[in-house]
Amino acid sequence: MLIVQKFGGSSVANADKIQKAAQRIVDTYKNGHKVIVVLSAQGDTTDDLIAKAKEINPEPSKRELDMLMATGEQQSCALMAMAIHRLGFPAISLNAVQVGISAFPQYGNARISRMKCDRIYSELERNSIVIVTGFQGINQYGDISTLGRGGSDTTAVAIAAEMQADLCEIYTDVDGVYTADPRMVKNAKKLKEISYDEMLELASLGAVVLHNRSVELAKKYNVRLVVRSSITDAEGTVVKEESQMESTYISGIALDRETAQITLIGMKDDPGMAFKIFSFMAKNKISVDIIIQSIGRQSVKDISFTVSTENLADTINLLEKNKDFIGYSHIMHDANQAKLSVVGAGMATNPGVAAAMFEALSDANISINMISTSEIKISVLIDERDAEQAVRYVHNRFFEQGVEF
Amino acid sequence: MLIVQKFGGSSVANADKIQKAAQRIVDTYKNGHKVIVVLSAQGDTTDDLIAKAKEINPEPSKRELDMLMATGEQQSCALMAMAIHRLGFPAISLNAVQVGISAFPQYGNARISRMKCDRIYSELERNSIVIVTGFQGINQYGDISTLGRGGSDTTAVAIAAEMQADLCEIYTDVDGVYTADPRMVKNAKKLKEISYDEMLELASLGAVVLHNRSVELAKKYNVRLVVRSSITDAEGTVVKEESQMESTYISGIALDRETAQITLIGMKDDPGMAFKIFSFMAKNKISVDIIIQSIGRQSVKDISFTVSTENLADTINLLEKNKDFIGYSHIMHDANQAKLSVVGAGMATNPGVAAAMFEALSDANISINMISTSEIKISVLIDERDAEQAVRYVHNRFFEQGVEF
Repeated sequence: MLIVQKFGGSSVANADKIQKAAQRIVDTYKNGHKVIVVLSAQGDTTDDLIAKAKEINPEPSKRELDMLMATGEQQSCALMAMAIHRLGFPAISLNAVQVGISAFPQYGNARISRMKCDRIYSELERNSIVIVTGFQGINQYGDISTLGRGGSDTTAVAIAAEMQADLCEIYTDVDGVYTADPRMVKNAKKLKEISYDEMLELASLGAVVLHNRSVELAKKYNVRLVVRSSITDAEGTVVKEESQMESTYISGIALDRETAQITLIGMKDDPGMAFKIFSFMAKNKISVDIIIQSIGRQSVKDISFTVSTENLADTINLLEKNKDFIGYSHIMHDANQAKLSVVGAGMATNPGVAAAMFEALSDANISINMISTSEIKISVLIDERDAEQAVRYVHNRFFEQGVEF
Repeated sequence: MLIVQKFGGSSVANADKIQKAAQRIVDTYKNGHKVIVVLSAQGDTTDDLIAKAKEINPEPSKRELDMLMATGEQQSCALMAMAIHRLGFPAISLNAVQVGISAFPQYGNARISRMKCDRIYSELERNSIVIVTGFQGINQYGDISTLGRGGSDTTAVAIAAEMQADLCEIYTDVDGVYTADPRMVKNAKKLKEISYDEMLELASLGAVVLHNRSVELAKKYNVRLVVRSSITDAEGTVVKEESQMESTYISGIALDRETAQITLIGMKDDPGMAFKIFSFMAKNKISVDIIIQSIGRQSVKDISFTVSTENLADTINLLEKNKDFIGYSHIMHDANQAKLSVVGAGMATNPGVAAAMFEALSDANISINMISTSEIKISVLIDERDAEQAVRYVHNRFFEQGVEF
């Protein structure tokens, strides 16, 4: 088989962990498989580099920040090759230029545009274990664009897709996908399988096990994903086309603390108003999530939406600069919001899920600020200080009371 | 003017030093010059990365070590670009791939094979300050080869040569080239000018101000070099074709502590004996320095030569593996040797220089183990423990007694 194995930053944080991961890679290789490894930067390297940059320039250029951050993966990959050599097996590290991972020039949050992989083929043919830097691509100017947080997952899946790998294993510090964050909910249960769509919702909604773009890509190219622990030999969770969980409505509960709410007060009620704002946001590459427009017959309206906390300052800045164009009277914003979501392929046909969720929050005396629903999820925006309690109440409602709808 | 400015690791060791160097670069730019900056890795970064590698694998692959080390310069260059941006000026960092610095695949000690510089031209045309990673090139496999210790000097001179720069300034933690190491000899004097040839001898002989390959390259392409302090505004030393020092015989004294002596005992006295050994060493990329062959009419001879300490283990290993091919009875070696040299364009026509040097060492009661001479230098091999005293006595003899020959 051809197997892609991705190890996150915590799984290669120090020499000891690199050696453990190397042993796991070699064990797979010894079983007769061809192995491509994708690595993140070690432990807190990326954060440390960002701190170093900000010491020198509080607003570093994104192009230079990418140039700086990309060194982290190159280091972990070279060190991993050395660790595998020490175990007596052939390995070679390759960065994004060497592999031929092309990306769009959206520094700090690029998307992969094309994969070449010739070099990977030729190194695999020489029986080498190939170790690839995650998180980065080369844009049309020959510059490095990083893929955003969690981008190494995307690199791993993109390589698995391009190389038609039999399996893409994501090694992390949890041993699978749970019904809720086990650090918050001690009764959280590990899922044996989950569908791409459900995983996609969970990933987009703040369950940090997998990066959402990697799941999108896996779904698009039908890459069989497994989320596994880099420490234990526990089985992990398989992410694939069809989940077998006919009996469950809900697969999991996700929490995203990095949510900020922005409200534009006093907008002129033109028919194209929402289009104007959100096409403007899209042009500036800012993802907007939940959107609510005030109801009523006044000639002015309010519009409220959420962005990720890290985009809050940029968004406010952008909106203020274009106040006249957009046409509102003033802005309000709140960085201390959290988005709580329940996800499950079974909920589409069952209106009782939303009611059960609202009931659990009401029992916990937690106010809901915004609501958003899709075919397979319900999200609510709540105050961040209520977040953990909300997760426990909602998890209890769906997974511990065992209620039928 | 087009000016290349190279800053060594100690000149960019922390945020504060990067900001100081950025100010100096910007001052040059504000004077209307086009500026290309070449940087080493920050402070001890390279050593720290090597230590990290050896923790994982005591004998790391040189290819992977280069992949690892090359990240150091990429980091310092990105940080420098950010520091210049903060001062309000345009700057862009470029690594060896982006510039197009081709190197031979001799990992850890590569030579530059070709420079493209198209990207540098286009960035300069946009009025950007261009910041280039020193110390590294890309070989024909698309892999990174580093240029060996001090390789950033070579990068700076190679760029200055290719771009036909008016000046190549080497910023370092000393403010010029001295008659001897000022840390050892307190009366050491700074030279206003020195010729390429003299600088070349000093550099090869252990005066660590400039990397010898960079001086060779500067001589070959007639690049005007200035060695200057990154801390003070002192004038520095100009390195150029013709030195003006008609009145001086000796330009400086150099000490190389990283010298080891190897002796092959009992070699068959074939006519091709020396050729056989040293072509063998050359094939294995080990530089041999002073060579002495025992004199006498026996059918077996001894041959003694020096290598740099870092190559000692490899050399012994190689010689032992090829004992039968080379044909000797046993090997002796001594890592605790130092090479003391006096350098000066004026000495060729003056036999008194050697005599004065030997006299000074005799006054200090220091034994000479080997002697080697060229047109413009005399080197002696002495025990390392005598090294500092030897420098002081010899400096005193030539620069303080003011003796005419």
